[in-house]
Amino acid sequence: MPECQLLETALYVGDLPRSREFYSTLFGFEVMTQDDRFCAFSVPGRGVLLLFLQGATRSAVASPGGLIPPHDGSGQTHLAFAIAANELPVWEARLAEQGVPLESRVTWPRGGTSLYFRDPDEHLVELATPGVWPIY
Amino acid sequence: MPECQLLETALYVGDLPRSREFYSTLFGFEVMTQDDRFCAFSVPGRGVLLLFLQGATRSAVASPGGLIPPHDGSGQTHLAFAIAANELPVWEARLAEQGVPLESRVTWPRGGTSLYFRDPDEHLVELATPGVWPIY
Repeated sequence: MPECQLLETALYVGDLPRSREFYSTLFGFEVMTQDDRFCAFSVPGRGVLLLFLQGATRSAVASPGGLIPPHDGSGQTHLAFAIAANELPVWEARLAEQGVPLESRVTWPRGGTSLYFRDPDEHLVELATPGVWPIY
Repeated sequence: MPECQLLETALYVGDLPRSREFYSTLFGFEVMTQDDRFCAFSVPGRGVLLLFLQGATRSAVASPGGLIPPHDGSGQTHLAFAIAANELPVWEARLAEQGVPLESRVTWPRGGTSLYFRDPDEHLVELATPGVWPIY
């Protein structure tokens, strides 16, 4: 079986500049490329967070290298970022500084802690320390 | 600025056993935990792919360690996995073997290649070789 790793995760947002500002300010992610329908952030550890303006990617895009197929989404979806256990208080302080209310804090049987909060579209964002999953 | 990495990405699916079968068979991901409303796969490189039954996580869940907030999603969303360049033909053969039609193949200016196909909910899945993004 060939191997693969997670590379890109996508959120569909109602106001692209607002969400771009939220993720770049809170997390310090750098924008790799953007236009009026999407934004691609580089996330440490070889990850990519994609923000797509809702409805703007419902048609295929003809690029010089081939057809980029359509996709779209709605709802208040979920994603999670891994953080270091000793930086949990730093993240809590950072959320408070940025005026982002903590929605919940969960401690897991394996010892990890999750902080849950909402982005501007009410997507459910989680920060998780080691001990949430068997592999982490 | 404290650092974080992508940990979990989520798909909302209409038939949980069908999607679990699709991802475990095609990718060989191992199920870490599952119930009738979700399934968590371990993905190589410390990643987690979550499948949620659409509509089943619209209410908060009271766990012993705290409240897990509600979330949900719909649409044909997008996610991507990183693969090795020399395994591109292996993945193409694997998709063909599993009866998964290739929807598109894109070559990018930096030299990477993406294969696009659909999962059972028509979510747009991409396999990407290095040279798609500046960081990859």
